[in-house]
Amino acid sequence: MRSKPATALCDSEMLSPEELKTRLRQVGEERYHHRHPFHLMMHEGQLSRGQLQAWALNRYYYQSIIPIKDSIILSRSEDPEFRRAWRKRVIDHDGDATHAGGIERWIKLAEATGLERQRVLRGEEALPATRYAVDAYLSLVRSRSFLEAVASSLTEMFSRDLITLRMDRLRQHYPWLSGGLDYFTARLDQAPEDARFALQWVTDNARTRPEQELVIAALRAKCDILWAQLDALYFAYVQPGWPPPGAFRIRES
Amino acid sequence: MRSKPATALCDSEMLSPEELKTRLRQVGEERYHHRHPFHLMMHEGQLSRGQLQAWALNRYYYQSIIPIKDSIILSRSEDPEFRRAWRKRVIDHDGDATHAGGIERWIKLAEATGLERQRVLRGEEALPATRYAVDAYLSLVRSRSFLEAVASSLTEMFSRDLITLRMDRLRQHYPWLSGGLDYFTARLDQAPEDARFALQWVTDNARTRPEQELVIAALRAKCDILWAQLDALYFAYVQPGWPPPGAFRIRES
Repeated sequence: MRSKPATALCDSEMLSPEELKTRLRQVGEERYHHRHPFHLMMHEGQLSRGQLQAWALNRYYYQSIIPIKDSIILSRSEDPEFRRAWRKRVIDHDGDATHAGGIERWIKLAEATGLERQRVLRGEEALPATRYAVDAYLSLVRSRSFLEAVASSLTEMFSRDLITLRMDRLRQHYPWLSGGLDYFTARLDQAPEDARFALQWVTDNARTRPEQELVIAALRAKCDILWAQLDALYFAYVQPGWPPPGAFRIRES
Repeated sequence: MRSKPATALCDSEMLSPEELKTRLRQVGEERYHHRHPFHLMMHEGQLSRGQLQAWALNRYYYQSIIPIKDSIILSRSEDPEFRRAWRKRVIDHDGDATHAGGIERWIKLAEATGLERQRVLRGEEALPATRYAVDAYLSLVRSRSFLEAVASSLTEMFSRDLITLRMDRLRQHYPWLSGGLDYFTARLDQAPEDARFALQWVTDNARTRPEQELVIAALRAKCDILWAQLDALYFAYVQPGWPPPGAFRIRES
């Protein structure tokens, strides 16, 4: 008697919540940007101030669209309870009357690298490839199923470990940057809380195996979006290094 | 010597902030739904309980999309300061951990008319014409210019007077409904505050006369959307009265 083909079995059976979480963790282990050479260099102290400036300036574009991304998700939910939970993200990034938000804190980080605030805000020197990757994130949350839009945020499952390591290494290797790390301090608490909610929600709302696979694929797609931003930085500013005309150039000092 | 044609003059000159406000107020005076026969009947005590149920049940669909509409507007703004001000509307309607929001308060009003909560939430008995009008509002804020999307909220300039009158008349003519008026109490403060912000914003951001005319047209479009919802109620439930198959029917009692 021949055994059933493993893939057919696999396709037809729902993953348990634990199995789904394991699959998501595998995606993170393999594809989250903690493995990217640009981050490895950062954490080993091998980046110059100019390369950190390029990173801060480009990633500002990503930070600046996060509340837009989350407002799109808000606008796609018909459930007030979901919206109440999700809008926290918009507030975390935009801030309120008494607390600076994540966008403002990222600007402070960019300033700590030595960039002028207006230069960061204008964003004219961000790499086109940064924009394409970030805009793909907006496109994903706007166009794909609501389940996939929510699942794309699951990279937050992995951010606490990366941020913990990064803060340690930034303080060690680039002590002149230590005053600009408030963004990461805030994310240490925010990201895990957001990740718990999103993981629970996709676990509850992916009701077939194909839907669970969509969740996993959305997390992969988001990992690709983060990874591609670092690729753009690496190819332009690390090696061999040819930022396109008009893009930020590292000032020889 | 012939005088300049008035329209050409009119097209070429910016309105002062006061003139713009006057034009907007004229739109409200002529087209806001305080003039609609359904509201006039309501305020004169001529509606039956069943007709008030039809009103509460249909308008719930409008209430339920307000935070969606405002999240679309949030998602279209690239200005954290604008988003911080505008997100108040989402919170006002969705509520938070300690305060019920406008949607919940509207459900309470519908319950006070004698409808069951689940029947209101399901929304299956809402008139198709209600949905079309309300969905046109979503379409407006999604598809038209951002200036027009913001301007479409300016009906809030007129809501305080209407709500004040309505609360007085509802208490007078339908005292059994008096326990369900919290929605209106909250809007007495929220709507004028929101209107002030929106009016200031469109005044500052309509920088040409054609843009000012777009603002005025967006307010007209929104008045039409509110008016059409009452038309649908009137034609189905007042006179002569033929709700389509499956729509809410007034129970003879």
